[in-house]
Amino acid sequence: MTEISSRLEVEDLQQNLRRVQERLAQKLEPAVLRSELELLHPADTAYILEALPLEERLLVWDLVRAEREGEILLEVSEAVRESLIATMDSKELVAAAETLEADEIADLAPDLPEEVVQDVIRALPQEERVLLRAALSYDEGTVGALMDFDQVTVRADVSLEAATRYLRALDELPAHTDQLFVVDRGGKLLGTLPLARLIVTDLEREVGAVMIPESVKLRPEDRAEDAAQAFERYDLVSAPVVDLITGSLVGRVTVNGVMDYIRATSSESQLAEAGLSKEEDVFAPVWNSFRNRWAWLAINLVTAFIASRVIGAFEGSIEKLVALAALMPIVAGIGGNSGNQTITMIVRALALGQIQSSYWRKLVGKELAVATLNGVIWGSLLGVATYLLYGNLALAGVMALAMLLNLLLAAGMGVTIPYMRARFGQDPAVGSSVLITACTDSGGFFIFLGLATLFLV
Amino acid sequence: MTEISSRLEVEDLQQNLRRVQERLAQKLEPAVLRSELELLHPADTAYILEALPLEERLLVWDLVRAEREGEILLEVSEAVRESLIATMDSKELVAAAETLEADEIADLAPDLPEEVVQDVIRALPQEERVLLRAALSYDEGTVGALMDFDQVTVRADVSLEAATRYLRALDELPAHTDQLFVVDRGGKLLGTLPLARLIVTDLEREVGAVMIPESVKLRPEDRAEDAAQAFERYDLVSAPVVDLITGSLVGRVTVNGVMDYIRATSSESQLAEAGLSKEEDVFAPVWNSFRNRWAWLAINLVTAFIASRVIGAFEGSIEKLVALAALMPIVAGIGGNSGNQTITMIVRALALGQIQSSYWRKLVGKELAVATLNGVIWGSLLGVATYLLYGNLALAGVMALAMLLNLLLAAGMGVTIPYMRARFGQDPAVGSSVLITACTDSGGFFIFLGLATLFLV
Repeated sequence: MTEISSRLEVEDLQQNLRRVQERLAQKLEPAVLRSELELLHPADTAYILEALPLEERLLVWDLVRAEREGEILLEVSEAVRESLIATMDSKELVAAAETLEADEIADLAPDLPEEVVQDVIRALPQEERVLLRAALSYDEGTVGALMDFDQVTVRADVSLEAATRYLRALDELPAHTDQLFVVDRGGKLLGTLPLARLIVTDLEREVGAVMIPESVKLRPEDRAEDAAQAFERYDLVSAPVVDLITGSLVGRVTVNGVMDYIRATSSESQLAEAGLSKEEDVFAPVWNSFRNRWAWLAINLVTAFIASRVIGAFEGSIEKLVALAALMPIVAGIGGNSGNQTITMIVRALALGQIQSSYWRKLVGKELAVATLNGVIWGSLLGVATYLLYGNLALAGVMALAMLLNLLLAAGMGVTIPYMRARFGQDPAVGSSVLITACTDSGGFFIFLGLATLFLV
Repeated sequence: MTEISSRLEVEDLQQNLRRVQERLAQKLEPAVLRSELELLHPADTAYILEALPLEERLLVWDLVRAEREGEILLEVSEAVRESLIATMDSKELVAAAETLEADEIADLAPDLPEEVVQDVIRALPQEERVLLRAALSYDEGTVGALMDFDQVTVRADVSLEAATRYLRALDELPAHTDQLFVVDRGGKLLGTLPLARLIVTDLEREVGAVMIPESVKLRPEDRAEDAAQAFERYDLVSAPVVDLITGSLVGRVTVNGVMDYIRATSSESQLAEAGLSKEEDVFAPVWNSFRNRWAWLAINLVTAFIASRVIGAFEGSIEKLVALAALMPIVAGIGGNSGNQTITMIVRALALGQIQSSYWRKLVGKELAVATLNGVIWGSLLGVATYLLYGNLALAGVMALAMLLNLLLAAGMGVTIPYMRARFGQDPAVGSSVLITACTDSGGFFIFLGLATLFLV
């Protein structure tokens, strides 16, 4: 048997995938492929499942041993997870979930049928059940939802020697244990003891004397984004999560949870930008793809329809000077691009907390200045092009002026939209691109055709 | 004096910033603010510098102690770094760079004047100079560029006791040391020894017997993106980088480098999507902003101009039926949105290596099916709306058919563009949105006006 190795060099992923595809094509004894899958890391199996079309994917999924299903469900993308869960009955789902820890079950829970979640809760030992209930209670996007319960705690009044003995008794430390959390008798967090410090320090000293008393502390209600920024800023591997009122340690956040979060939110915003409601399985059935995409198309249909009615109001002018029809999309299009540049920059700076309320006026001024510069340069260029094409000096002037005005509109709205949304407590990122484009399309048509009606026809 | 604490709860960042702003406004003795800045983590100082307008930013920068300037330059965004470096002379820059390690200097190097880099190289001790030359030799986007040289190595034939004694002699371990790298006399990597394992294992055993012989190995030439995916997949904190031929350890990659990389590439793609060449300092001078944005606007001007000429070719038809002018942007707009949905999904799946060459045909089929469904639904809807507005059944039919055809064009190009670009070794992500929008704009106008000319006028 050719060996399928896990955790080797990076391109092995593709090799694993090709080997599985060959096995599927050969239609050999499933036992061969089954035992090869056994050797793979759950994340590698997840990769293979994501890259296979639905039919082959389900063939492979059937060969995965029941005890590993939970881990693999955690690793696959949400879209692929749905396709796998759809083929499992309640009993299989409960069995898969039971192999996981409380915080992991909480991550899966939104994709599981409600009765499966209830069955899993009932089947858990009391202590785990409390943790799972806690984990389920935090909203997505909070530190509570990123948190796990694998923290290793130690008391301040023991020697490092005793602490080391205690760690040995644990046999293996949870992944990402770079530090121990020092707590008092009541569970209140007193400080942290990095393993690197434990190793290099005299074992006779006391934990309390060696620990770092002051460190980054998160609270379950904090925004996950703030925690992610703290991890990046201070290069953390793990951070304690404490209760605001009692100061007691409730869990920890690790860098791998943060990294998954960063990847997930950045891909969500990328997908939202393109009008996909969520991550889409490339091999999704047509109907699922349609559902994932229709909402955005419908919204754009509405804004396009409004823009169309703005043009409709000037049909008389277009009839008299048909060149307007050919020129108007340029004004609208460049306005949209320029507005998107402004709004993207402002939304990013807002997300990073870089814009203090005192600086908005300054920002509007700057953006209007950039728009004026752009408007003069591109407007003149387009004015010249218009004159060369149509030999109409007045039309050229209207084109140049409309361009300048629409760029100013784009800059003004590009600052105002995120400002107003942030002010009223909304996420300035969501749908900002649709809003600005709607303004610059309808606005661009109105400005250009309005000026043309005033001065030309 | 009110204390400015570093590394506390997350919202302290905003408090620090406000305090600095107050101090600036009070125009007190600079010594007060200077000593407060001393207490801040370099990343926190970087945050403040990023959030201040240029003038205030430079006032604060002047108060930063020279020995800390290097660290802070590393932490600020590229745009802000440029604004700071512009105010420093060569001597200051060399002094700042000399406080950093080789891999850090290499990260700064692209923003430094060439003669400063040469001066720094000359001023370094021989050993560091070799490392810096190596670090400078790797291209951006490779593992070599992510790598640092802070790995702690240990020999396989010593006892854990001896290894521990060696670590104590180091006094402090480098950040993100979660494992020791086990090497032979020639520097060849034999395996890794996690600290967590070192702590829980009997100290009399030998390193070689306890180490993990097989683990993820990266090579300096590997794509940084592949390394990032390996870190996410296997939840790594650090990974060794080895030379392909000799197998010897050349450095390591840590999770914080990977996290910075993920953040940087995701924000780059977000910025590129919106047409910004690079991250922009919100308080950048107008001219800098213009330079960052003009290229994209120019490209869009060209594509908009082409679309405008397509319309120009049908001016005769529009003159006869002016409703065409009002309706045509709807067909082009919805096609663009739909094409962007397809291309975004395909580009993402390609980046994750999820599309095998054998599945392209399947993908085209699926996307065309989704487009047909969308086309029939939205096309009919718009057809009805057109009939209600203009009472022209033939025009309604042309509208519906043009919508369907442009959505099919969008789906076809949405798969074809990334396929062709990946095939010819280009990055399918760059500018994909411009390309698809150019196709669906010009294509949409051509289809709609062409059909109208055939059947209506």
